[in-house]
Amino acid sequence: MSDYKHPLTDAEFVLNELVQFDQLCADAGLEDINSELASVILTEAGKLGSGMLAPLNRTGDLNHPVLGDSGVQQTEGFAEAYKEYVEGGWATLTAAEEFGGQNLPNVLGTAVNEVWQTANLSFALCPLLSQGAIESISHHGSDELKQHYLPKLVSGEWTGTMNLTESDAGTDLAAVKTKAVPNGDHYLITGQKIFITWGDHQMTDNILHLVLARLPDAPAGVKGISLFIVPKFLLDENGNPGERNDAHAVSLEHKLGIHGSPTCVMSFGDNGGAVGYLVGEENKGLAYMFTMMNHARQGVGLQGLAVSEAAYQHALQYAKDRIQGTNKDGSRYPIIRFPDVRRMLMTMKSGTEAMRALCLVAAAEADRDNAARIELLTPIVKGWVTEFAQELTYLGVQIHGGMGFIEETGAAQFYRDARILTIYEGTTGIQALDLVGRKTLVNGGESLQALLDEMTADIAQFESLGGQFTLAAQQCRRSLDNGIAARQWLLDSAADKNAPGSACVNFMMLFGFLCGGWLMAKSAMRAQAKLDAGEGNPEFLQAKLATARFFCEHMLPRTQSCLASVMAGSDSIMQLDEEQF
Amino acid sequence: MSDYKHPLTDAEFVLNELVQFDQLCADAGLEDINSELASVILTEAGKLGSGMLAPLNRTGDLNHPVLGDSGVQQTEGFAEAYKEYVEGGWATLTAAEEFGGQNLPNVLGTAVNEVWQTANLSFALCPLLSQGAIESISHHGSDELKQHYLPKLVSGEWTGTMNLTESDAGTDLAAVKTKAVPNGDHYLITGQKIFITWGDHQMTDNILHLVLARLPDAPAGVKGISLFIVPKFLLDENGNPGERNDAHAVSLEHKLGIHGSPTCVMSFGDNGGAVGYLVGEENKGLAYMFTMMNHARQGVGLQGLAVSEAAYQHALQYAKDRIQGTNKDGSRYPIIRFPDVRRMLMTMKSGTEAMRALCLVAAAEADRDNAARIELLTPIVKGWVTEFAQELTYLGVQIHGGMGFIEETGAAQFYRDARILTIYEGTTGIQALDLVGRKTLVNGGESLQALLDEMTADIAQFESLGGQFTLAAQQCRRSLDNGIAARQWLLDSAADKNAPGSACVNFMMLFGFLCGGWLMAKSAMRAQAKLDAGEGNPEFLQAKLATARFFCEHMLPRTQSCLASVMAGSDSIMQLDEEQF
Repeated sequence: MSDYKHPLTDAEFVLNELVQFDQLCADAGLEDINSELASVILTEAGKLGSGMLAPLNRTGDLNHPVLGDSGVQQTEGFAEAYKEYVEGGWATLTAAEEFGGQNLPNVLGTAVNEVWQTANLSFALCPLLSQGAIESISHHGSDELKQHYLPKLVSGEWTGTMNLTESDAGTDLAAVKTKAVPNGDHYLITGQKIFITWGDHQMTDNILHLVLARLPDAPAGVKGISLFIVPKFLLDENGNPGERNDAHAVSLEHKLGIHGSPTCVMSFGDNGGAVGYLVGEENKGLAYMFTMMNHARQGVGLQGLAVSEAAYQHALQYAKDRIQGTNKDGSRYPIIRFPDVRRMLMTMKSGTEAMRALCLVAAAEADRDNAARIELLTPIVKGWVTEFAQELTYLGVQIHGGMGFIEETGAAQFYRDARILTIYEGTTGIQALDLVGRKTLVNGGESLQALLDEMTADIAQFESLGGQFTLAAQQCRRSLDNGIAARQWLLDSAADKNAPGSACVNFMMLFGFLCGGWLMAKSAMRAQAKLDAGEGNPEFLQAKLATARFFCEHMLPRTQSCLASVMAGSDSIMQLDEEQF
Repeated sequence: MSDYKHPLTDAEFVLNELVQFDQLCADAGLEDINSELASVILTEAGKLGSGMLAPLNRTGDLNHPVLGDSGVQQTEGFAEAYKEYVEGGWATLTAAEEFGGQNLPNVLGTAVNEVWQTANLSFALCPLLSQGAIESISHHGSDELKQHYLPKLVSGEWTGTMNLTESDAGTDLAAVKTKAVPNGDHYLITGQKIFITWGDHQMTDNILHLVLARLPDAPAGVKGISLFIVPKFLLDENGNPGERNDAHAVSLEHKLGIHGSPTCVMSFGDNGGAVGYLVGEENKGLAYMFTMMNHARQGVGLQGLAVSEAAYQHALQYAKDRIQGTNKDGSRYPIIRFPDVRRMLMTMKSGTEAMRALCLVAAAEADRDNAARIELLTPIVKGWVTEFAQELTYLGVQIHGGMGFIEETGAAQFYRDARILTIYEGTTGIQALDLVGRKTLVNGGESLQALLDEMTADIAQFESLGGQFTLAAQQCRRSLDNGIAARQWLLDSAADKNAPGSACVNFMMLFGFLCGGWLMAKSAMRAQAKLDAGEGNPEFLQAKLATARFFCEHMLPRTQSCLASVMAGSDSIMQLDEEQF
C-alpha cells in the first residue's frame, strides 16, 4: 500500500462544511488556528503518511516484531519512521502548551490521526496509546507526575501503554488481580497483563506503562482498582531513564492481523515488584479509565475509517487496472465498468465518507465541550464504524477476485488488520450495551432525542431539495422514523430485563447508519449550495452528491431490518436452554 | 477443532422431513437405499471426520505444503488420512457402479461431504475436485478415456484437478491462452494455469489434470476452448502410471486461508509439451465445464455451511466455558447467558440449519432430475450460503473476544478459510448475474415463479400455526412479498442495461434469506407435527422450533433492505465518472 494518498479534499470538506472548523476555533479562543492552517498541517501529514509510513505497512505484516533477551525488537524501519514522526512534532499536536503541546483542536488531531492509521495501522497504534497515557496523567496525575512524565510523552520521546486486561479479566475488569503494595513513596506491582499493545520496543529510551492494580485492602470488584504509572526505566535524579524496572514483556501473541504491532504479555514484579506511582487517588482507577475511554474508543472508530480508506484505495486501483470486459469490437475494458464492481466501490467510497463525517463531527464535540453528545456518539463511532469497516475491507478483497486471497496482493492485510477493531477497547456488544444503557435508558432517552431533533430539522431541509434526491430523502425520513421507533421501543421495553441486551447491537447499527445518512444528506446540501454559488471544486462536489445519494438509497434501508430485529425483542433469542445449543 | 462432532440429528431431520429421503430413493428405483442406511453411513463418516480429519485441520493451517524438487509435499498426516478415506470406500459413494461406485443419491453424498468439509476444509478440497473430474469424464469422455481413468478416480487411488484460470483469464475464460497442438492420438499442451487446488501432492501415485486449452485453429473467445485430460504420469500399456508427463507445479501461493490445501501455479509443456487427451469434441470445453458447474458450485456452497458449522461449534464451546458474569451473590457464570452472545449464537445455529436445509434440498433436486430447479437454486446455494458464511465465521471470532484474534485459539482459521468461498468457482457477483440473467430473465422469470408458488403454499400453512409463530409467519409473508416484488422489478427493468448488474447481489441475497426462511418455516411445521404426534427427540424438535422462529424474526427482515436496494436501481451506482472515484 505504498501508493496511499490522503483524501485531503474530503477531510477539508468535512472540517469546513460539517464541523465549521473556523467557527469552532474562534469559539474556543484559538485565534491563530483556522482552516488554512489545518490544510497545511494535513498536507504535511499526508506526505509523511504516504512517503514514510505506508511503505512500511506490508513490511510490518511480514516481519513481525520479535522478543529477544533485550526485549521486543520492532520491525525494521519502524524506529526511523517513529523518529521522523517525533522530529516533525507530530506527537505534540493536541497536547497542552504547558507540557510542550501545540494545543490544536481535537478534531484536527483526529483528522491527522486518520493519516497515520490509514498509512500504517500497526505503527499508528503506538502514538495512539501514548495519547491515552497523556490524557490519563493530564487529568488525574499529581503535579509531580505531570512534570516528570508529560513533557517526554508529549514530545513523543517516550511512549505510553495501557495495561488493563488479564487472562481472567477482559471485559470484566472487576476481576483484575494484579497487586499493588505500598512501599514508601511508591508501590510494588506484581501480576501479569495480556494483550498489551506496543508493550515493549526499542524505538524510545523509555516506556510508561499505565497499569490497573488492586491494593491489599481494596474493596472487591471495580471499586477496588487503582491506576499506576510503571516506567520501563525508573527516572534518575535528573529525570532521565536510569535503573531498569521490574516490568517485562514475556511473550508476544500470534495474531490474525496488525502484525507490525507487538502485542505483549507483560509481567510485573517477577523479581520482587515493579515500582509504580499512584495516579490520582486509590481505588479510583476505573473512573480514571472512563475519562480516557471516550477518546480511546473514538480513536478505534477512526481506525475503522482508516483501514476502510486504505482498502478502498487499494481496490479502486485494481478495479481500474484489471482488464476483464470485452466490447463488441473486441477492445477490452477494466472491471470498474461492471455495475456490481461499481456497487462495491460505491459502498466503499460512500461508506468511508460517511465514516469520516461521523468521526470528525464526533471529535469536534470534544472541542465544544458538548459532554452529552460526546457520550452518546462515542459508542456509535466505535461500534458502527468498526463493524461497517468489516464489510468494507471484505469488499476490498472481493473486488480483487482470486488475487484478493493471495497475501502478496495486500488486500487481505487490511481485512485481517480490521478484524481486531470490533474487539479491542470494548467489543461491539459492549459499545451497544453502553449506548442503550448508560447513554439512553439512564437519561430517559433525552440525549438521543436531542440528536433525533437535530436530524429531523436537517432531513426536512433535505426533503425540500427534491429532484435526484427524492428517493434519498425518502430513505432518510424512513430511517429517522425507524430511529424514533427504536428509541421508543427501548424506553417501553424496560420490563424485560433481556430486552436491552438482545436488541442493543441492532439498535446501535440502526443509529450508526442513520448518523451516516444524516451527515451525508447534510454533505449533499452543502455541496449543492457550493455548486449553486459557483464555489469549490465542481468535480469533487458532484461526486459528493452521488455518494450521498448512493448512501441514502442503498445503505439506509438497512435501518429497516435493524428495527425489525430490535422490535422482535428477546423471546426467540433467549428461548433455548443452554443444553439445547 | 479436534472436538468436531457431526450434527447427525439435524442432517437426519433435513433428509427425512424436508428431502423425504425414502421417497426419493424409491422414486429413483434405489431399493436397497433408505434413511436407516443413510444414518449408518453418516455416523461412520462422522467418526472419520472427528477422529482423523478434524485433528489435522490446524496442522494444515500451521504446516503448509511445500514445493521441493520432487513436487509438492503435503502436510504431514494428510497422506495417512487420505489413505484411510480411500480404504473406507468414501470416494466411491455417488459414482456409477460400472466404474466401482456405490451409486448412492447425490443428496446423501452431499450430506457426507459436509462432514469432510467441516472437519478439514483444506483436506476435503482434494476429493471434491476429484468428484468434478469424475463428472466431466463420465459425461463427456470417450469410452476409452472412461475405462482408462474412471475406476482409479472413483476409488480415490488417483485424484483430479481443474485447470481453468490463467493470470489474464479468471472470470473471463474467453481469454484462455494455453495451447493444445494435435500430435497423433493426443495433443501437446503448453501454457500456465494459476490457482490450481491440490495441483500436486504425494498422496496418490497419479493425478489427472483437466485442462482448458485452445487449438491452433480455434475460434476466438469461449467458443474456441477445448477440454483435455493431462495425467501427471502417462499410463503404460497395463494402465499403470509410467512416464512423467510435462506438467509441473512451479510455485505455491501464499494465501489468507486454506493453508493445508496447496494452491499451485501449474506449468504445462516447459519441456516440449504435456501429453493431453481430448475430452469429448474440440471447442466444446466451456460447455463441458458448465455440465459440472452446478455440482461444483453447490459443493462450494456446502463448504460455506461446513465452515460455519465448524465456527459455531468452536464458539459455542467457548461461550459455555468462558466465565465472565457475576451474580449478586458473587457466583460466576459463563458468557452464553449474555443476551448479545445468545443473539450471535442463535444467528450461527439458525443460520447453519437454514444453510443445511437449503444445501440438501438443492442437492436432492439432482436426484429428482429437476433441471430447472437445480439451475435456479445453484447460484443461490453458492452465492448466499458463502456470503452468509462470512458473517457466521465473523461472529465465531467475535464471541471469543480478544482470544478470537489470537491464532492459537483456532476461531480465526475458520474466518480466514471461509474468505475464499465467495471468490472461487465464480465470485458472488458471477453467481448473482447468473441468477438474474440465465436463470430468470432468460425464461421470463418462470422457474423463479414456480419456486415462489411453492413457497406461497407452504407459508400460508405456516401462517395457520399462529401462537408463538405469529411474528415469524408475518416476516415470512413479508419476505415472500419482497421476493415477488423483486422478481417483478427485474422483469420490468430490462430497459436499463445496468439494472441487472446493479441489483443482482441484493436480489440473490434476498432470495437466499427467503429460501432459508421458507425451509426453516417448513422445518418448524414438521417439528411441530412430530411433537404433536409424540414422535422424535423432543429436545431437538423444540430447539428446531426456536431456531426457525429466530431465523424468521431476526434474519428475514433483511429481505426488506435487499429489496429497497434492488429497487433503487442503477442510477446512483453508475452516477460517477471513473475519474471521480
